[in-house]
Amino acid sequence: MKIVLLFFSACCLFHPVVRAQSAADSISIRNLANNILTEGKAYSNLKLLCKDAPARLSGSPNAAKAVELARKMLQDAGADTVYLQPCMVPHWVRGNAEEADLVIAGGKRVSLNVCALGNSMGTGPGGISAPVIEVRSFGELDQLGRKVIKGKIVFFNYPMKQTLINTFEAYGDAVPYRVLGPSRAAKYGAVGIILRSLSTSLNDFPHTGITRYDTTLPKIPALAVSTNDAEKLSNYLRLKMVSRLFMKDNCQMLGDVPSCNVIGELRGTEHPDEIITVGGHLDSWDLAEGAQDDGAGVVQSIEVIRALKALGIKPHRTIRAVCFMNEENGARGGAAYADSAASDGNQYLFALESDNGGFTPRGFSLQCGPAQFQEITAWRTLFEPYGVYLWRRGGAGTDVEPLARVKSVVGELLPDSQRYFDFHHAGNDLFDAVNRRELLLGAINMTALIYLVSTYGI
Amino acid sequence: MKIVLLFFSACCLFHPVVRAQSAADSISIRNLANNILTEGKAYSNLKLLCKDAPARLSGSPNAAKAVELARKMLQDAGADTVYLQPCMVPHWVRGNAEEADLVIAGGKRVSLNVCALGNSMGTGPGGISAPVIEVRSFGELDQLGRKVIKGKIVFFNYPMKQTLINTFEAYGDAVPYRVLGPSRAAKYGAVGIILRSLSTSLNDFPHTGITRYDTTLPKIPALAVSTNDAEKLSNYLRLKMVSRLFMKDNCQMLGDVPSCNVIGELRGTEHPDEIITVGGHLDSWDLAEGAQDDGAGVVQSIEVIRALKALGIKPHRTIRAVCFMNEENGARGGAAYADSAASDGNQYLFALESDNGGFTPRGFSLQCGPAQFQEITAWRTLFEPYGVYLWRRGGAGTDVEPLARVKSVVGELLPDSQRYFDFHHAGNDLFDAVNRRELLLGAINMTALIYLVSTYGI
Repeated sequence: MKIVLLFFSACCLFHPVVRAQSAADSISIRNLANNILTEGKAYSNLKLLCKDAPARLSGSPNAAKAVELARKMLQDAGADTVYLQPCMVPHWVRGNAEEADLVIAGGKRVSLNVCALGNSMGTGPGGISAPVIEVRSFGELDQLGRKVIKGKIVFFNYPMKQTLINTFEAYGDAVPYRVLGPSRAAKYGAVGIILRSLSTSLNDFPHTGITRYDTTLPKIPALAVSTNDAEKLSNYLRLKMVSRLFMKDNCQMLGDVPSCNVIGELRGTEHPDEIITVGGHLDSWDLAEGAQDDGAGVVQSIEVIRALKALGIKPHRTIRAVCFMNEENGARGGAAYADSAASDGNQYLFALESDNGGFTPRGFSLQCGPAQFQEITAWRTLFEPYGVYLWRRGGAGTDVEPLARVKSVVGELLPDSQRYFDFHHAGNDLFDAVNRRELLLGAINMTALIYLVSTYGI
Repeated sequence: MKIVLLFFSACCLFHPVVRAQSAADSISIRNLANNILTEGKAYSNLKLLCKDAPARLSGSPNAAKAVELARKMLQDAGADTVYLQPCMVPHWVRGNAEEADLVIAGGKRVSLNVCALGNSMGTGPGGISAPVIEVRSFGELDQLGRKVIKGKIVFFNYPMKQTLINTFEAYGDAVPYRVLGPSRAAKYGAVGIILRSLSTSLNDFPHTGITRYDTTLPKIPALAVSTNDAEKLSNYLRLKMVSRLFMKDNCQMLGDVPSCNVIGELRGTEHPDEIITVGGHLDSWDLAEGAQDDGAGVVQSIEVIRALKALGIKPHRTIRAVCFMNEENGARGGAAYADSAASDGNQYLFALESDNGGFTPRGFSLQCGPAQFQEITAWRTLFEPYGVYLWRRGGAGTDVEPLARVKSVVGELLPDSQRYFDFHHAGNDLFDAVNRRELLLGAINMTALIYLVSTYGI
């Protein structure tokens, strides 16, 4: 690894902006890393959060339980102050009767692994039964039009693209079918949709996630079907063996309810009004334990506070770990935090989110100008011993992105993406899906970056 | 990602050796990657190998079955010629009676999760029962000496170091206790050893792997105990609750038997006598399916041949995929291949092994001179779209390393190491432990490197 470090150091000589890579910083980061790897609480905190407050969807009793757990974790981590920041959140409930059956030749029924899409409307207690038509794209839907689509259930069978190496790009490519699919189909008179789950693997888990209705069109029920059963359904359709699809679910959107973000702060010793935010989201989908999405990001953010405090590091600038509420189906927590930031008189310097899973970290994405990017990436060699090589100007986490409007540099941790969509929003997003060392390595790199920004500013 | 590519390109301007990064190479690699991701056989081949020939320890019937499977896979991949290269291999058998019980106060017995170390001698049918003493290091063992150790079972409780980010470094640090522990203890009159498994996680799986006896000392039986049970045993000992340890296993080393490497070749069009080798090892430990170790490397190496052939690429130099036999407990296949290379009149240019698991690739290690290293790393930007950033001069795979004596550049794929020692040599090294996309991404980077070397030489 030394060879590579030398190579990078050589590069830096030609680099217009070179930051002091003090040996002291390298040693501080090594001490933080050792502490996180041997004394860290991120993994045990994740277990607690997953097992005591699984399925912590906004507005649910478990979301409230998660708030109390996070508050306690931040206190135990040694935050100077821990407080709740109120926000109203949507309250969607899944109900308990999701099913979809293919009715095939002779009236025989073949049941499929399905779940309702988040924020969708249920079918009502009787369910619906209609002919089903497979479409491979919105273009194909538009071509078929009202004449073919009316009265039918549309089966959106758009697989995530395997050839995109970064699976988040494949997600970005396919997610419009989940978010917009129901209304696009309703426009042509469809009575429901069934979506091929957004997963890069073939498995039996249906993957939920929000859909958004166009309020000018009928709100039709919307299910996701597992990728294996999407293949099965497609095969039955190709063989013309399907007479109808029956689907039933009794989910519903209730009125907004009060909830909150949970915030823990280490007050800056020199510039207390310069705020550095690190966070993940506390809410999760309701099918599993929300371990990768986003228990991992929550406990990593709390770990930043714990590790700095454990080593007696007093940050120059104020560091806040924020456990955001409602990222999954409304992003109200992130909005509330940004609203407060816009009016509280503090300067919001930098905000980092971890919401791409607790996998081995590969890099950081930063939403900032080129000069700021050069400033930050001048630290890159400090991260290479911990596996981070990739720095890119790009997007930021959903919860911290709104801080861009108060001129904060915003960003996100980029863990390895290959396995993320095996678990995302599905019933297998369980504590055991997270590897301890991978989770801690993410926390180490986050802590290192927050430590550097809190010391030197941007 | 574009930003990073630009940064690297800028670096290369200052680099003394710059290779032509032809757009054609970039396109060829993209085509190979797309083919591997959508038409690849590595994952289905891995399933076949794991399910039809699990526990393929050298000399076992399943090792012979694996030879036939690999031969068929190489033929199906489109190799010009497929052949077997004979070698003699050790034949060690585990038997069927491994157990270890703590005898605690009142004669109560607490059983532990154990397995015999590879190549070790059994206790005989009656087992052995002796007081057990925990040591934390060889230094401590030496200090205690014959007076304390004689007649006892030594419990080597040396955990892998959590603070080493690359878990292979932690393995290198701890593995002497497995390889040398029994003879070091026998020197002081110990009657057996029980080793804390070499794993970075706390789990219930004992991890096997070879031990080597000093032939001038008594060969004493040697078990590995799971990390969870190592903690348990240590606790019982601290509380002075253990009167004796009973251990029993009937493994034995039989005489050498014939076996072979399996080789598939794409003959070079311009320099057929310049040989490029890519390989993994076909044998595995006998406790599971050998999926990460090293079914992954075998199917990735076969995939190199398949992908090049599928795209109609005729390599300038000869490419050989080699499925090595007996890496685990003798390395005889690698030795046989190198012996043949030393006398067959061909020029051995480059040899790459994948034997660090089928996880997301992070880089390559190359055992070569500085000039060769510069030559090869001038290609680095071609690999970054596929997640490989780390190039280091270092070691090579066990099977290809002997080719260094015929002046071949040798190397190995460096996948992410965080999860490897959760599975290594243990009962959970199963097909399901390998993620399809991670496996394929490794195959892509291997194919790209072999393609470039076969085109340009070194």
